[in-house]
Amino acid sequence: MTFAEYLDTRRKQVDAALETWLPKPPACPAVVFEAMRYSLMAGGKRLRPLLVLAAAEGTGQAMGTSEAAARDAAMPAACALEMIHTYSLIHDDLPSMDDDDLRRGRPTSHVVHGEGMAILAGDGLQAAAFQLLAREPQGLHPTLMARKLRVLAIVAEAVGPAGMVGGQAIDLAAVNSHSKSASSASSAALVDGSASSAAPLDADGLQAMHARKTGALIRAAVAAGAVMAGADDRLAGTLDTYAAEIGLAFQIVDDILDVEGAAATLGKTAGKDEAAGKPTYPAFFGLDRSRTLAAECHARARQALDSAGLLDSRLDDIAGWIVNRTS
Amino acid sequence: MTFAEYLDTRRKQVDAALETWLPKPPACPAVVFEAMRYSLMAGGKRLRPLLVLAAAEGTGQAMGTSEAAARDAAMPAACALEMIHTYSLIHDDLPSMDDDDLRRGRPTSHVVHGEGMAILAGDGLQAAAFQLLAREPQGLHPTLMARKLRVLAIVAEAVGPAGMVGGQAIDLAAVNSHSKSASSASSAALVDGSASSAAPLDADGLQAMHARKTGALIRAAVAAGAVMAGADDRLAGTLDTYAAEIGLAFQIVDDILDVEGAAATLGKTAGKDEAAGKPTYPAFFGLDRSRTLAAECHARARQALDSAGLLDSRLDDIAGWIVNRTS
Repeated sequence: MTFAEYLDTRRKQVDAALETWLPKPPACPAVVFEAMRYSLMAGGKRLRPLLVLAAAEGTGQAMGTSEAAARDAAMPAACALEMIHTYSLIHDDLPSMDDDDLRRGRPTSHVVHGEGMAILAGDGLQAAAFQLLAREPQGLHPTLMARKLRVLAIVAEAVGPAGMVGGQAIDLAAVNSHSKSASSASSAALVDGSASSAAPLDADGLQAMHARKTGALIRAAVAAGAVMAGADDRLAGTLDTYAAEIGLAFQIVDDILDVEGAAATLGKTAGKDEAAGKPTYPAFFGLDRSRTLAAECHARARQALDSAGLLDSRLDDIAGWIVNRTS
Repeated sequence: MTFAEYLDTRRKQVDAALETWLPKPPACPAVVFEAMRYSLMAGGKRLRPLLVLAAAEGTGQAMGTSEAAARDAAMPAACALEMIHTYSLIHDDLPSMDDDDLRRGRPTSHVVHGEGMAILAGDGLQAAAFQLLAREPQGLHPTLMARKLRVLAIVAEAVGPAGMVGGQAIDLAAVNSHSKSASSASSAALVDGSASSAAPLDADGLQAMHARKTGALIRAAVAAGAVMAGADDRLAGTLDTYAAEIGLAFQIVDDILDVEGAAATLGKTAGKDEAAGKPTYPAFFGLDRSRTLAAECHARARQALDSAGLLDSRLDDIAGWIVNRTS
């Protein structure tokens, strides 16, 4: 199976599982179901569920257990992480956050369903994700219960105020600070939590913000797959190194694509991030150095895979895809 | 110990535990920590944590086990439900929802911290609640793991799109429908999920909306306490009947207090709910009949407690407090 075929196969499995597990009428009122489904089934890359499944498969491969069984055990976590990612996009797009009207060429949730219903769709997707992670068939084996609780704890911490939500809060405070052109606290103080007022981010602050905002969920995805497949501590640690590196690479490439996309658009001199006063890697380091930084992350991620004997796993393909993607 | 002393003691224990378990700097950026803490420590009634603890104590009493141990085992769930309740208030108060500037005499979250940070504070509190429910000391006994997973599943369903978020979505759609004076779908269709467009609620629709919006979390609170304390299926079922009745009574009394509070305010002819076009029990049934309905719920709740031999438990005191409160 080529990597393109692999992506296609897994995405279809994830989409089918998402359709099955998304709470629906009559249990769930149609108004909020439709708002949740509109964003959840909008055809994203499915990067996080793919990472969950590939980490589970890789763990099965490294531990000498069944890759298919590992993948099946990880599918609820794969779907839960996509629900959480979708909730974060809906809330990030709100007028009081990034104020985006379009995502993937379609009007954003609040444009279609109104701001209040968009907030509720996000809230509902977060709860639905934890409901899926907690699903407990009667008489679960203690080993499996322990894995599920561990994944719940990892995911909740990664998406909460110390993780994704905290990163978004730093981002919001930094952009507000930029737009007000007023600052009394240092960037480092904002990120490490010692200051409550906002300041523009420097390069270290930018990296710390992204480590929370996008990095934490990507690491949680890999950890969830590894834990559900029974990774030992050493393998879990190695896979976490891989995840941290590709998470950072993902964000650097995102910033590069924003600049390149803007440059390709006639009459537009800078990308959306720059226009919004958002700090980016190209703004701090320039395009060439940013590309080098992404390549260095990629190399370190592959080194981690190599040390676990997983260079021939789909985790390596996904790392390459993240760094070399054009959209 | 009088009931007043009991309430005071338990509230102080809950407040101390909330302070301990709320994610804080440096793990969590100060901007979002301060926004979460502002609303979480604003001095609410703590009804939901009190119900968790009283249900755990009552279960210990009925099962002949230690009430104190039952209460300790339930404290994380008690705090988690208060975090979820607080998140729901922050989001409900937003301009795109109920648009409230004041709560308990203090400016609401979005007035103080801005709309974006208020949304993030709510998002963060929801995640922090699940993080607390999933906390897993190493080497947990399988019985305790099973109880924790069960509570996680119960709470996630109760607060998600089939529960609290679904109730808020029906409420939002009904108020929008009222304010637009346009309707093409029946109220029943809105509530049972068969219609996506909104319609004004009738009395049955009102009850079904409240069963989700406030009832589901109150039932989850009682269930969480019962499960953590090891209630058998029969006791859990009886306590759920109690919880459903007091949940409904709570909402009826809320509506009555809104009308009475408004009547007591010079120059104001109707309560906030009526002004907002919200359906209420007094609007459908009048004040006298609404009071009778609340008393009937109270009687059925006490009947359930009686059948479990728990009329001398704090659960009975809490039911009386809910029905007879004046604020």
